[in-house]
Amino acid sequence: MTPVKPVFWKSPHLYIIDQTLLPVQAATIELASLEDVWEAIKSLRVRGAPAIGICAAYGVLVGLRSHIDATPETFRDRARRCIEYLATSRPTAVNLFYALDRMRAALDAVPAHTSSQACFAAMEAEADAQYAADIAMCRAIGDCGADLIQEGAGILTHCNAGGLATTGYGTALAPLYTAFERGRHFKVYADETRPLLQGARLTAWELQQAGIDVTLICDNMAAVIMRDGLVQAVLVGADRIAANGDTANKIGTYGVAALARLHGIPFYVAAPSTTFDLKTRTGADIPIELRDGEEIRRLGGIQTAPASVHTYNPAFDVTPGTHITAFVTDRGLLRPPYAETITHAMQPPFPAP
Amino acid sequence: MTPVKPVFWKSPHLYIIDQTLLPVQAATIELASLEDVWEAIKSLRVRGAPAIGICAAYGVLVGLRSHIDATPETFRDRARRCIEYLATSRPTAVNLFYALDRMRAALDAVPAHTSSQACFAAMEAEADAQYAADIAMCRAIGDCGADLIQEGAGILTHCNAGGLATTGYGTALAPLYTAFERGRHFKVYADETRPLLQGARLTAWELQQAGIDVTLICDNMAAVIMRDGLVQAVLVGADRIAANGDTANKIGTYGVAALARLHGIPFYVAAPSTTFDLKTRTGADIPIELRDGEEIRRLGGIQTAPASVHTYNPAFDVTPGTHITAFVTDRGLLRPPYAETITHAMQPPFPAP
Repeated sequence: MTPVKPVFWKSPHLYIIDQTLLPVQAATIELASLEDVWEAIKSLRVRGAPAIGICAAYGVLVGLRSHIDATPETFRDRARRCIEYLATSRPTAVNLFYALDRMRAALDAVPAHTSSQACFAAMEAEADAQYAADIAMCRAIGDCGADLIQEGAGILTHCNAGGLATTGYGTALAPLYTAFERGRHFKVYADETRPLLQGARLTAWELQQAGIDVTLICDNMAAVIMRDGLVQAVLVGADRIAANGDTANKIGTYGVAALARLHGIPFYVAAPSTTFDLKTRTGADIPIELRDGEEIRRLGGIQTAPASVHTYNPAFDVTPGTHITAFVTDRGLLRPPYAETITHAMQPPFPAP
Repeated sequence: MTPVKPVFWKSPHLYIIDQTLLPVQAATIELASLEDVWEAIKSLRVRGAPAIGICAAYGVLVGLRSHIDATPETFRDRARRCIEYLATSRPTAVNLFYALDRMRAALDAVPAHTSSQACFAAMEAEADAQYAADIAMCRAIGDCGADLIQEGAGILTHCNAGGLATTGYGTALAPLYTAFERGRHFKVYADETRPLLQGARLTAWELQQAGIDVTLICDNMAAVIMRDGLVQAVLVGADRIAANGDTANKIGTYGVAALARLHGIPFYVAAPSTTFDLKTRTGADIPIELRDGEEIRRLGGIQTAPASVHTYNPAFDVTPGTHITAFVTDRGLLRPPYAETITHAMQPPFPAP
């Protein structure tokens, strides 16, 4: 089952579902130029670490397809510049750099003086491999976590690390899709996830598309549904996981984790091995992006607050590893002590993402 | 200092700030007819229990001012019908009935055959007394709580129980206004308060009008600013307080209280004595209104979620008294054990609201 196809390559054309139009419109658009790709990543038309990586990998090809008749030197120079340019689109997305690094490595592996066409083909094969690896990775996470979703359970999720964030199967949502495929009955509560409402726009939409029973709540309702016994597990994604298990994810995740802990509810982070960053020792080493206050002061075209009011708008927060019951990964379920289990499971070399 | 005047009488004219236009427009409008008054209360142009009561009391005068030359019998009959009509505008607002009951009692206290002009004057004096009592009540809450706002502190608040909900000084926000008058420096973080955004539209606006340093955040950011040491106290209002201290307030309050407790931050509820309901023994006896899912699925005219997605939209939640550090009231600061301190302080008869 692949409920949605958020990013895909039909050689030599790159398509995405424009996620800024969801849930009103499910439009698949072509990213016709390198600038389109950069803008789509920057503006969150494509979002979620794996999908951004895949989009950037194919995005390099978008920037190169008009250069396959150029000299090998010109082609390689252009490739380097495409990669450097796309790396500036979303500076906190580690998968972006990883995907681009692999595209660079694929090119570097091709012997000098090889034709531009052959260089392009080698890079296309690398991007295709990244795509296939992402599907395999999502399925592995789903297999790992499906049995955490118990029959009749209520599952709370925050933001969207679902199919839309990947090639279609999701990381945080993969266990739900797998459990659903296995005939399990459960109920999902989706935090709407202010300010950008990824939970309302994306998670609610894609779970509904898949036929899963989903109930949308405002972020501030999570506490009371936990207390009232409606939630048996929390399942979220991650943007970056430090060696000690500290986890950066969408703003609001820390609050959900703290409340889950207070109410004795297991809190699971589902993420691919590429999201673990052993070079980041603890959460204190993860920089937090502060975003524009207009995201809070306005919604769509509507002003919802005084025009000039101060805001504080961190894009992410860091949940301490101590608040996390287990990590659901493509390399198995990791439990504390994370300094050991993460280090053991996530030894490089990483597989292709 | 009265930062805003959400409802006021300039005999014989009644004015309100139309709160449905905030924060884009701060328009003071006249309620020129009895029907205008009814519609303003019904449509939340005036909102907050105390402000609704004051508006209704003066609203009766709006319906009577063209009858002061009528016979006393006609005048009294008209008065009764005005009162009954306004009571239908917002059937859950207990202050509305209380204010109207007192207007009826003021008229009943005037000897039969007294001129209509004199009856009108007696009722106007009653409405003025309610207005003055509300100011005194707000100031008393402000005096009670001002010293909880320490120099340099960060104060988190949720929803709006500010000046706009009263005659201008507020209940939950009164301690902030009083501390500010006393020259205290502090910073307020206002939760935007989904789904209806009272924090963004009203609290941020009125604190900014008063010159208080206010920063607007999304509800899901409260946890991380607590953990990062930006919040030294939480101050919220209440819709109903049970005899044991369990407190019904805007949805999200329980989550804020739970997180404050987890982070060792004092959590204060500021409310007038009229909000304490000794007949309600515990929070379990407080019915929770479930509101329409469109409030979550749409904002203004904008669809923010799949049109048909399930929602769960409780208007209130109940914070256990055990999570509340103290109540800031017009009858002093109440600390645990609440079963004793509330019962002692809130013995009826209540003063005029």
